[in-house]
Amino acid sequence: MRTLLLAFSAVMLALAGLSAPLNAQEPLEKTGELPPLYRAEMDLAEGFVSDMMASGVVVPVPADPGGGYTHEQHKRNYRAIYLAGQLYRITGDRAYADYVRDMLLAYAELYPTLGEHPAKANQNVGRLFWQVLNDAVWLVHAVQGYADVRDTLSAADRAAIDDRVFRRAAHFLSVESQATFDRIHNHATWATAGVGMTGYLLDDRDMVDRALLGSDKTGNTGFLRQTELLFSPDGYYTEGPYYQRYALMPFMVFADAIARNDPERGIFAHRDGILLKALRTTIQLTYGGYFFPFNDAIRDKSLNTDELYHGVAIAYAETRDPGLLAIADWQGRTILTEDGLLLARDLAAGTPQPFDFRTLLLRDGPEGDRGAVAILRDGKGPDHLALVAKNTSQGMGHGHFDKLSWQLYDNGHEIVRDYGAARFLNVVAKEGGRYLPENESWAKQTVAHNALVVNGTSHFGGDADLADRHAPRQLHFSSVPGLQLSSARIDTAYPDNPVAMQRTLALVDVAGLASPVVIDVLRATGETANTYDLPLHYAGHIIETGFVVDRELAGRRVLGNSHGYQHIWVDGTARVQSDGAFMTWLLGGRFYSYRMAAQPDLQVILGESGANDPAFNLRREPLVIQRVEGAKETTFVSLLEPHGMSDGATEQTVDSQSLIASLQHRKYNGYDLVIVETKRGGKTVLAISNDTDPDKQHRANIDGRMVRWTGFAERIDLAGEKN
Amino acid sequence: MRTLLLAFSAVMLALAGLSAPLNAQEPLEKTGELPPLYRAEMDLAEGFVSDMMASGVVVPVPADPGGGYTHEQHKRNYRAIYLAGQLYRITGDRAYADYVRDMLLAYAELYPTLGEHPAKANQNVGRLFWQVLNDAVWLVHAVQGYADVRDTLSAADRAAIDDRVFRRAAHFLSVESQATFDRIHNHATWATAGVGMTGYLLDDRDMVDRALLGSDKTGNTGFLRQTELLFSPDGYYTEGPYYQRYALMPFMVFADAIARNDPERGIFAHRDGILLKALRTTIQLTYGGYFFPFNDAIRDKSLNTDELYHGVAIAYAETRDPGLLAIADWQGRTILTEDGLLLARDLAAGTPQPFDFRTLLLRDGPEGDRGAVAILRDGKGPDHLALVAKNTSQGMGHGHFDKLSWQLYDNGHEIVRDYGAARFLNVVAKEGGRYLPENESWAKQTVAHNALVVNGTSHFGGDADLADRHAPRQLHFSSVPGLQLSSARIDTAYPDNPVAMQRTLALVDVAGLASPVVIDVLRATGETANTYDLPLHYAGHIIETGFVVDRELAGRRVLGNSHGYQHIWVDGTARVQSDGAFMTWLLGGRFYSYRMAAQPDLQVILGESGANDPAFNLRREPLVIQRVEGAKETTFVSLLEPHGMSDGATEQTVDSQSLIASLQHRKYNGYDLVIVETKRGGKTVLAISNDTDPDKQHRANIDGRMVRWTGFAERIDLAGEKN
Repeated sequence: MRTLLLAFSAVMLALAGLSAPLNAQEPLEKTGELPPLYRAEMDLAEGFVSDMMASGVVVPVPADPGGGYTHEQHKRNYRAIYLAGQLYRITGDRAYADYVRDMLLAYAELYPTLGEHPAKANQNVGRLFWQVLNDAVWLVHAVQGYADVRDTLSAADRAAIDDRVFRRAAHFLSVESQATFDRIHNHATWATAGVGMTGYLLDDRDMVDRALLGSDKTGNTGFLRQTELLFSPDGYYTEGPYYQRYALMPFMVFADAIARNDPERGIFAHRDGILLKALRTTIQLTYGGYFFPFNDAIRDKSLNTDELYHGVAIAYAETRDPGLLAIADWQGRTILTEDGLLLARDLAAGTPQPFDFRTLLLRDGPEGDRGAVAILRDGKGPDHLALVAKNTSQGMGHGHFDKLSWQLYDNGHEIVRDYGAARFLNVVAKEGGRYLPENESWAKQTVAHNALVVNGTSHFGGDADLADRHAPRQLHFSSVPGLQLSSARIDTAYPDNPVAMQRTLALVDVAGLASPVVIDVLRATGETANTYDLPLHYAGHIIETGFVVDRELAGRRVLGNSHGYQHIWVDGTARVQSDGAFMTWLLGGRFYSYRMAAQPDLQVILGESGANDPAFNLRREPLVIQRVEGAKETTFVSLLEPHGMSDGATEQTVDSQSLIASLQHRKYNGYDLVIVETKRGGKTVLAISNDTDPDKQHRANIDGRMVRWTGFAERIDLAGEKN
Repeated sequence: MRTLLLAFSAVMLALAGLSAPLNAQEPLEKTGELPPLYRAEMDLAEGFVSDMMASGVVVPVPADPGGGYTHEQHKRNYRAIYLAGQLYRITGDRAYADYVRDMLLAYAELYPTLGEHPAKANQNVGRLFWQVLNDAVWLVHAVQGYADVRDTLSAADRAAIDDRVFRRAAHFLSVESQATFDRIHNHATWATAGVGMTGYLLDDRDMVDRALLGSDKTGNTGFLRQTELLFSPDGYYTEGPYYQRYALMPFMVFADAIARNDPERGIFAHRDGILLKALRTTIQLTYGGYFFPFNDAIRDKSLNTDELYHGVAIAYAETRDPGLLAIADWQGRTILTEDGLLLARDLAAGTPQPFDFRTLLLRDGPEGDRGAVAILRDGKGPDHLALVAKNTSQGMGHGHFDKLSWQLYDNGHEIVRDYGAARFLNVVAKEGGRYLPENESWAKQTVAHNALVVNGTSHFGGDADLADRHAPRQLHFSSVPGLQLSSARIDTAYPDNPVAMQRTLALVDVAGLASPVVIDVLRATGETANTYDLPLHYAGHIIETGFVVDRELAGRRVLGNSHGYQHIWVDGTARVQSDGAFMTWLLGGRFYSYRMAAQPDLQVILGESGANDPAFNLRREPLVIQRVEGAKETTFVSLLEPHGMSDGATEQTVDSQSLIASLQHRKYNGYDLVIVETKRGGKTVLAISNDTDPDKQHRANIDGRMVRWTGFAERIDLAGEKN
């Protein structure tokens, strides 16, 4: 239990608490010193609210779409109601309560006059805003601020605001917009949260029950069902990390209210603690604080976001997980609730332990059988190595056609990249911040990812509905010292001309090398002669290519016409031979060598994004494509090796050239044997049986030596480094 | 005076001190606690020296060129001698002294056997290394380490090392290499420092005097003369900041020894305190800790460098300037001398004051009449705005053909860029780290800078000797609230077809705007019809162009054939009209709009570096060129406006579009009148008389209103912002 909760429990139990059980006679500020993080948060809130109070109560008749004046003003208003309520609770300063009252009385005048918003965005039109979603977000915030001041109001004011604002808003969201309310969808999470919290505040059990169990109270829809269907058993949200963060806010805030008002529901224990799991999973889906930019993600989105300030504080209060203190410390922010205070106090009391970022598999789909994200991490701290295998399902309309794609982070940088969305949030000149045409034509296409493209067309032909019906299968995931490995498969990405793809990605220790290397084995098995392209979107400056590049020096052509190929400038092409099949680049003071196992007629294309981009909407970033033409099947075996360093301060450069002598791939009996030899004589084999039976024994002959292993894959040292 | 010096003065005065006056009987470590920065520095030194000691004494016969084994080993050795000597003085541990002795005895065996180094690099061939310079650096370090242990040696060992190593090395540098020794050049600074410090240690007055006053002891050459000729009166070193940093080390270290051994010379007061001035100037030539990358600079070079650890500690001991503590704090490093100890103690005692980065003019040339660097700063701290006008002379062989070029920094980023050198320091695959061919063909060329190009050819036709004979003239420099301004002129950059260029760059407050804007007035006056190109190398992603760009969408051509134009890909061209003559880009969460005053037939070319670059040696960076063809004279008037913000964390974007409505330029009576109107009705004029008489009064009629000002330029508000 929570110490602060106990301290104030007598007062609290008399109130319908929401997230504000502290609105006691004795304001918090007078009960003792406030910890620095909480104090700083108050200063921010006071700054915002005093600006708003200075401008007076401004509640305009809704007119504008997103980004327009009335839209932004109603957003500012809900933030002011929410924060002023909290400041009243903390300081006891009646001016805050009066401001919230005046604001809500203005809404009480306006709200009953409203019909459909004039700037209707889609089917789900709102009242205060152009879409229902925004109205729900307004309610979630406003009801919390109202809860903090409601007992200061006269009976008449209270009745006016209860009836003319909150009951009406809840009715609009839950009854008039019942279709949205009863969906299993993030928009419904916001709606049920707003309505449910209103129900608690107004002591309206019917409202609460509809929010929790759906309009028909059967539990087939509603908030509880959403917690069961919207997250996978591992707490992964199918749209990806960027949307997971957004979805998390109403889940955590409403759950906090449920825990206080209906503790017997054990909401935080529901479905094996899915909400707390989802919060932790959201954090696991980051590197350096930034979310893996899967799907339509804005790349500069980090843990520094309002949703996560709420999520971390609420989860910390529930779990006392000291790793969450480290996250709050990184954020440098919290929330002004009791949970935020507890977190800030504990943070002030000592140095937090690092959050436990680790190697893990996050299954996708409500049953956990629609693919997965595999995260392989080596080391700790801001410079650690992390490989992310995106073997998830499509993730609905914001999903990208990138089955079995991957990313790599090292030394604080994204080395193998995911483009994210082609969008400049809220930038007027970039189509008002909406998704740009290049989001469809480039960012979503397969060739814009580190994923296999067959015959120059994207997975599922770029059909999102079709894509949503199919998911990869995670075949294997394991982590032992020296070898972390994920393998997944999908046979349905090209329905008209089927190609089975299986990709094994592993972090493998190689004898004599300081850092593990990535080994990537991608098997493609088709039924006709196909062109197979395997792009790698890297970040860095080319230092060396082992192959001779036929350069496009004095003019630059475009690689293709469609499916993203029209956006690629060609820098050059090459035929590669086994002994020179590598290239090296430099990023952030480290070198990276990408090495390809030789195969007949392997071509390499070096290019850059940015062609056919009339409005300069695309970033210009390099890529390399391995291409095999006219083959029914092929296996691309690649290795990515971080090595050396280059330090401008000391003018020192070490190991700027790859330490690996060769990469070989042998197929034998359905096995993939990947042999890595270092220049100093180390020889390491990654032996992959491709057999999911964990107990089955395998063996293969490599250059006269028999190697044996058990299960899906093992790492075998054939020779140590000679020195 | 220095407190520590006094405390140990009895002991010290008995010794020939150099920078190590503390080698007393009582080791420093036992005399009290060591401050954290100094302790950390000791740990680093102990780590390095103990590794070296574990490998035993290894003094190979010189064989290899730079980067090779014997080269690197002799570098490691001098560092080990230097640090082990210091560790002996601090800890009193005889093992360190014995190690230095054994190492130097090995050198005493080797040194007399040496002739010219087999891997002769140039005329100035060394003994231990391939060039004399490296031998001098070896001596500067080794003599300091030797000074710390010399009194622990037997008379026989001392004589062997004195005579067979140090006297011979000094003889080699000062007599056998007299031509280098007597130059007015950075290489001679290292040589005189090494020889002079050896003279102090061996109590050889002749050696000292030759180092201070040149071989003939007339003072026409030698160290003292170097301090007079190599720096301008403002402490600017003509090759630019990157080389200034490098040159500073022997100046500061030898001066420190002179101050201790010949205090009556008042070396730190010499020439109005030029050495301390040069140290401070070196620091002023940075933004965010990184040197302005003028000329052949490596861009990742910052204050975090050995030369500046020495310079800052020595200068702090001399001046007790608390701003230097802030620099040391940023560096997180110091040196193990008494000066380093003093600095570390004072740093540990309290929070340092920020270093006083400010607006200033740094004249170039020994007499201060060979151009200047003008630095205009607005605000303080890591996000401040800084404009750098590079009106310097060529700066010898490492100089770039970029007369009157400029840079802009804001919000922690370089907004208007200088490419620096095309070189990957010590990277084997990039020609062993040497300057790349593209350093000549791109990095040095005028079009690679923010400087005027006439008829597609670089300044001085790219002839470095010719360029060195001419310098710009700084016409004016001033800073008053609301207006900081630099103006400079050069008439000699195109000797065959003369074009006089004058450029005025200013930071100007504009009514109603939060940040000052840059106003750039570049007048070019030729004698024939010329093509004038004014490139701007910006950093950021294009958000908007006010003009319609004829894009090169599906193929990309190269802009020209020579003088750097062959390295520019064309993205598109445009004819601009007055009302749309701007473009906006986004960098680091801020927007920047570049606006051009209309003039007849003004063309704009959008491009990117990286064409004709077979080995991927160039970075790919955007540029915009203003072009006027077939004109005898032209004036380019441009404005750069920082505005708004875009914050991914809060998903907020503010003022993504320029707040300026128009930019006009009027010529009147030899004046340049630049009129800026904001969208909210503010109207500000920058009135430039181009007359250097500070008292002369000027007036001009602007739209029926008479404006008056005095001197070179003033800022005049014609209308405040309407709200």
